[in-house]
Amino acid sequence: MSETSPLARPFPALPPIAGVRLAVSRAGYKAWDRADLTYAALDPGTVVAGVTTKSKCPSPEVEWCRQTLVLGQARALVVNAGNSNAFTGNRGRSAVEAIAARVAGAIGCQPSDVFVASTGVIGVPLPIDKAEAGIDAALVAPEATWIDAANAISTTDTFPKGAVTRAVIGDRTVTLVGVIKGSGMIAPDMATMLGFIFTDAAIEASLLQRMLEGANAHSFSCITVDGDTSTSDTVLAFATGRAGNAPLTTVEDAGADAFHAALSDLCRQLAHLVVRDGEGASKFIAIDVAGASSDESAHRIAMSIANSPLVKTAIAGEDANWGRVVMAVGKAGEPAERDKLAIRFGTTQVAESGLAVEGYDEAPVAAHLKGQEIEIGVDLGLGEGQATVWTCDLTHGYISINADYRS
Amino acid sequence: MSETSPLARPFPALPPIAGVRLAVSRAGYKAWDRADLTYAALDPGTVVAGVTTKSKCPSPEVEWCRQTLVLGQARALVVNAGNSNAFTGNRGRSAVEAIAARVAGAIGCQPSDVFVASTGVIGVPLPIDKAEAGIDAALVAPEATWIDAANAISTTDTFPKGAVTRAVIGDRTVTLVGVIKGSGMIAPDMATMLGFIFTDAAIEASLLQRMLEGANAHSFSCITVDGDTSTSDTVLAFATGRAGNAPLTTVEDAGADAFHAALSDLCRQLAHLVVRDGEGASKFIAIDVAGASSDESAHRIAMSIANSPLVKTAIAGEDANWGRVVMAVGKAGEPAERDKLAIRFGTTQVAESGLAVEGYDEAPVAAHLKGQEIEIGVDLGLGEGQATVWTCDLTHGYISINADYRS
Repeated sequence: MSETSPLARPFPALPPIAGVRLAVSRAGYKAWDRADLTYAALDPGTVVAGVTTKSKCPSPEVEWCRQTLVLGQARALVVNAGNSNAFTGNRGRSAVEAIAARVAGAIGCQPSDVFVASTGVIGVPLPIDKAEAGIDAALVAPEATWIDAANAISTTDTFPKGAVTRAVIGDRTVTLVGVIKGSGMIAPDMATMLGFIFTDAAIEASLLQRMLEGANAHSFSCITVDGDTSTSDTVLAFATGRAGNAPLTTVEDAGADAFHAALSDLCRQLAHLVVRDGEGASKFIAIDVAGASSDESAHRIAMSIANSPLVKTAIAGEDANWGRVVMAVGKAGEPAERDKLAIRFGTTQVAESGLAVEGYDEAPVAAHLKGQEIEIGVDLGLGEGQATVWTCDLTHGYISINADYRS
Repeated sequence: MSETSPLARPFPALPPIAGVRLAVSRAGYKAWDRADLTYAALDPGTVVAGVTTKSKCPSPEVEWCRQTLVLGQARALVVNAGNSNAFTGNRGRSAVEAIAARVAGAIGCQPSDVFVASTGVIGVPLPIDKAEAGIDAALVAPEATWIDAANAISTTDTFPKGAVTRAVIGDRTVTLVGVIKGSGMIAPDMATMLGFIFTDAAIEASLLQRMLEGANAHSFSCITVDGDTSTSDTVLAFATGRAGNAPLTTVEDAGADAFHAALSDLCRQLAHLVVRDGEGASKFIAIDVAGASSDESAHRIAMSIANSPLVKTAIAGEDANWGRVVMAVGKAGEPAERDKLAIRFGTTQVAESGLAVEGYDEAPVAAHLKGQEIEIGVDLGLGEGQATVWTCDLTHGYISINADYRS
């Protein structure tokens, strides 16, 4: 594991979720001295929702989850770290089926109740013997904590990532806990890396799916580290129903809004943590685009800025190079009029109406850029479209990690 | 100027072009000790064609060239280095008009016969007094050589770039010479950086335009360094007609094919030189995509691979990480079937039918990746679509250049 990201956050105190039991074990997918298999047992009645990568070359785990998500029920989750099992043909598919069968046989459920996710190198079939031995060990292991799980699902992550939110539904308070891993190949397209959310709320699977998709659109789909989209991106949300609230079945139910807000908050927190552990990151960058012709257009412009190597290196160099922001707006291909464009760093307007603001105060801009939390604001001056995305800077650290990494 | 790129090519011997007279001068756009204004005087009767950036925020120079290209005639070219004049509002437009007027007054032509291009920092109006003094000096300067011009149009380029081709039209041999500059913010979208082509051929402006657009589609539009598209990308081609060939007016004319081929060859050579001077480049990478559902789809997949930071860093690290190539294919959003995909490095097939080729010989792959000329081949196995693009690797050098550069 590399040195901890300077943008790291301490792992928060996360409460247990009734109906969820965690375990970790050492399957030994790589030659490392750490747990690399995570197992979550879920009480009968648990429902599940999920979003997965839009990659045209998804891993067999992603295909498995897509099939089983249709049924909406879950009894177990297995996460493998160190081997993504992607692009491994029939052997990869067999490994996923073997994992599901092993767990189903041990706990007495259908294989389709078992969710599987894997992360790591592409192109090497997941060794079934190691997976099965790891599962057997996890089934009899002592209960693990959230931080154990957050560590066990990690690969190049430099710190474990988790978050918690709560919502009041009627007379019950429900709890949502999530763990997530990054931290390169991060430009999830309607999904992300591997993220797992657990709640004791009672909610119908279809409603949970709808709410997760909504939350995803404003969190995991709004982050990017390097513009590269993984073949394995997966976020799953499990709801055990053990809080005993009146089950949520429609968005109009009392408490549904509160739950949706708590889920969205959790997803945004988790997404931010992934950016904070972006490979080589030294700055957390929020990009706000307003005045675009539509929200979708604003999002595409914001992502064009967030993925621009020249913008990202300028921020790494603490350079208020708004010309590179103009460039990134221009290349997005979205409606833009040069002479209506305004750009700010932090709260200081540096360009307006197609040219630099004469004699703007450089001191607050320089001070802002020296910090770890950077904000770039762009106003297109065309309409009401708005979007915010989050990214990190591009540093020598990214090159060191990725030019030295061996497949 | 940084250390010369390891991929540099020596500047070739370039012959004079009848009807073209070059000069350079020191306008002093930056605090540097070099010529930074390039002037080309063109004989009466010279026709011109051009392609410019698709950026939605083009520079006033680009807008000027688009307007004047419609007329198809040229008498002079002025190129400013060190200041792109982009995003400078009315002052920027005034600077371009002042340059055109100054030259037109001095040589007795219409301002619309004067072409202007500028490269450098965005957001600082081009100082009119320096431009005018530079033009006045160039008008009386001794004749300059092609390498003088190639150096004077450069900014962060580490070596001057030029090329020559010839074609036989009837009983005459015509000559085409080009000079070009890069070398960051390079992902031209139907155009490129600043490139200038001069030929003594006699050809109608509309046919030259058509041929240049065709050549561009397979050269400048097929290269990328960092995926960032400049606001100033411009390629202009000037034909003086002094070779005395029977003027080319249609693609069916004798010699038209030969001229088009020579123009395409020249554009490809110039485009390759830009990649060879990509910021921080240590490897020249050709990406061949075949078997796609269409040529356009193949091009988009090839560009997705070429712009992937993870592919580019893997090549920098001499790592045969074909999993990252799969990732880049998958994220392109184009038709792809994981289990039909085949990937090669150099001539060695490393993946086929959705999985690694068992026991492929790693020795030739390792040897290939240690070289400076890398070839990645992808076969989608779907159709007849084909494309080739060229890029360079992503190294610490890119970060050093761009995180330290100050606007």
